[in-house]
Amino acid sequence: GGNSGTGGGAIGEGNEVLLSMRGMKQVREVDAVSGVVVAEAGCVLDDLDRHVQQFGYIVPVDLGSRSKCMIGGNVSTSAGGLRYLRYGSLHGTVLGLEAVLPDGRVLDLLFSLKKDASGYDLKQLLIGAEGTLGVVTAVAIALAPKPKSEQLVVLGMSAFANIQRAFVLARQSLGEIISAFEFWERRCNELVVEYEQRPSPLPTPHDFCVLIETRGSHMQHDMEKMDAFLDLLRAEGLIDNSRLVRDPDEMGCVWEFRQQMATAHGKSGCMHVYDFSLPSKHQHDLVVAVKEHLTAAGIYGQPDSPVKDVTIFGHIGDDNIHLQVIAKEFGGVVEETMEPWVYEWVGSRHGSVAAEHGLGKHKGEFLKYSKSPVVIDTMKAIKQLFDPNNIMNPDKHISRA
Amino acid sequence: GGNSGTGGGAIGEGNEVLLSMRGMKQVREVDAVSGVVVAEAGCVLDDLDRHVQQFGYIVPVDLGSRSKCMIGGNVSTSAGGLRYLRYGSLHGTVLGLEAVLPDGRVLDLLFSLKKDASGYDLKQLLIGAEGTLGVVTAVAIALAPKPKSEQLVVLGMSAFANIQRAFVLARQSLGEIISAFEFWERRCNELVVEYEQRPSPLPTPHDFCVLIETRGSHMQHDMEKMDAFLDLLRAEGLIDNSRLVRDPDEMGCVWEFRQQMATAHGKSGCMHVYDFSLPSKHQHDLVVAVKEHLTAAGIYGQPDSPVKDVTIFGHIGDDNIHLQVIAKEFGGVVEETMEPWVYEWVGSRHGSVAAEHGLGKHKGEFLKYSKSPVVIDTMKAIKQLFDPNNIMNPDKHISRA
Repeated sequence: GGNSGTGGGAIGEGNEVLLSMRGMKQVREVDAVSGVVVAEAGCVLDDLDRHVQQFGYIVPVDLGSRSKCMIGGNVSTSAGGLRYLRYGSLHGTVLGLEAVLPDGRVLDLLFSLKKDASGYDLKQLLIGAEGTLGVVTAVAIALAPKPKSEQLVVLGMSAFANIQRAFVLARQSLGEIISAFEFWERRCNELVVEYEQRPSPLPTPHDFCVLIETRGSHMQHDMEKMDAFLDLLRAEGLIDNSRLVRDPDEMGCVWEFRQQMATAHGKSGCMHVYDFSLPSKHQHDLVVAVKEHLTAAGIYGQPDSPVKDVTIFGHIGDDNIHLQVIAKEFGGVVEETMEPWVYEWVGSRHGSVAAEHGLGKHKGEFLKYSKSPVVIDTMKAIKQLFDPNNIMNPDKHISRA
Repeated sequence: GGNSGTGGGAIGEGNEVLLSMRGMKQVREVDAVSGVVVAEAGCVLDDLDRHVQQFGYIVPVDLGSRSKCMIGGNVSTSAGGLRYLRYGSLHGTVLGLEAVLPDGRVLDLLFSLKKDASGYDLKQLLIGAEGTLGVVTAVAIALAPKPKSEQLVVLGMSAFANIQRAFVLARQSLGEIISAFEFWERRCNELVVEYEQRPSPLPTPHDFCVLIETRGSHMQHDMEKMDAFLDLLRAEGLIDNSRLVRDPDEMGCVWEFRQQMATAHGKSGCMHVYDFSLPSKHQHDLVVAVKEHLTAAGIYGQPDSPVKDVTIFGHIGDDNIHLQVIAKEFGGVVEETMEPWVYEWVGSRHGSVAAEHGLGKHKGEFLKYSKSPVVIDTMKAIKQLFDPNNIMNPDKHISRA
């Protein structure tokens, strides 16, 4: 891929060889009737998206790193990203792929068919395998129609429960046009304002901010739906402020604010970052539990504590929460206090220790907290089956589990 | 499952044991915030759908056999069905599953998380495995919001190319509300009228009929979009007649007409049925090629020919075509002329020999026409890995390939 991953899955170590897919950047075919593109792994996401827009479609995955990441890497890491809520998982939208197996044989699954129930769906193993089973060289993806109308709203709220209620109402009122449902805490907002010199999307401070985007085919209809949705929120007293944005440039600014959240955290201190999926009923408990745990360990809550900030933000529509613990130093007592404790906490609530950034180099050892021994043994058997000599990303992913 | 499959995957032979899942019909959980249901394999699709409707959701798969088929069977066969175009593949909507492996161990992948990039997505192997790798005992499924408005239109057209153009326009105009796009040939229409005593949805005869359904959250908006879409079709001269249906009972009648197509064919003679996926550019060539091939073989085209009818209908929005060859007798010269010729024809055009009805008992031997030896060898290796003693559905599916 574009070497833009954050999980360490694409970092070479020791005598490992890094494979560049830069030379494989041809778009092999666009079927404008079915809305399917066949593209080589080295196509940069942004370039590929621009290419299919000529045919009235968009690529159904969108990431902050879109100008750099490559479609082969997106598929190999099962990238989630910003509009997963609308366009769904790559496990659903990747129709086919071509991969070179560790023994040099080509696994030709490069079909452009929406339905195919002929045998095991082997391509699914390569989606999210982070290069450990073979090298994805080309993919076929079901495209989404290019939206004709876009709008977003930023909401200020005072309770986490309000976010969840708003999500239920949004799915009912905005149903088919909702394309993103993001949230962040007050401290996240402050950090972007402070470290990225960005104006706050809302002028007023709120415990929680929510960003909801719609993408549809009819501006007037979409505006009416959004207005009715906001009336519902107000009638139930769920929001304290809101800002509706329909100007494309302004929408871009709000999205940039959201996307600079990770870098702002990184600038504010030594960031220990976690990428969890959690069932909705446990989401808010996470940050409460982390703060209590760090306080009990005596490293959070005082002006001179080693931990400066504990924050959450993320893709709430996908149950995907990014947890940041900002400390004065990397590792040490902070890491020891957090890990494996936090993985155990998430695992025991049936969450995932890696929602969208993969296992890479760092998460494999924590997989046992969310997956059973039978599951891990089966994953290792799959790895052994595909790569008996362990030559593909040998010391990462499942090899660390 | 509910033993409603048509591919023969659920038929016991010799000394095989059939496992009933009827006792496992509990709905374990509905997360009304995230819209996720956890249900045991024996839940009948219709019952499960009614249950989640109380929470404002629907199950994102719909089949003609909904009153009989079970959710475990739906997942095990990777069922496609009527609204695949809208709700997508079970590979995308099944979030988790629990299965008992052939050696008795439980593979607990029963997570309710929308995003999970922690290790290989093993559940995908069980989806569509037709019971050959283990027994699916429970599933977690991402639900879709219950639609608040539904309408459908039946279109009469005189050329296959018009259907394809209408599909492109429908995706652009009806984009986010389109929920089904079906087609059938004139002869299919005649057979349902004759053998099921059903009134034709359109009073006029047409070479092709198209059924388009929308499901949305706002009746007024959806009606306006449909009207604008029909204006577009008329402006481009694509349709010769149309009937817009907004009354629920009338809509039900049209759907029943469509769903009785298979049985009507069966009543009209000895039906040899094929379930193919084909790239859009080859779809219409299929029926032309079949007719030419049968004519050249001297078994079609004369009043006393062994083959009486050759028809196609299906889910054109999903590139899924059902081909029927109606003969005076089963098998014999008709089967010999059709097979493996038709599988070779489909395979050589990068289609699938089994789109939504699985390999079952009959299709395994034809898999080689659409999948390469490397792919088939890898599938067999997966089967060997999970079921080394070959005790699960031993003489079906990949075992026949």
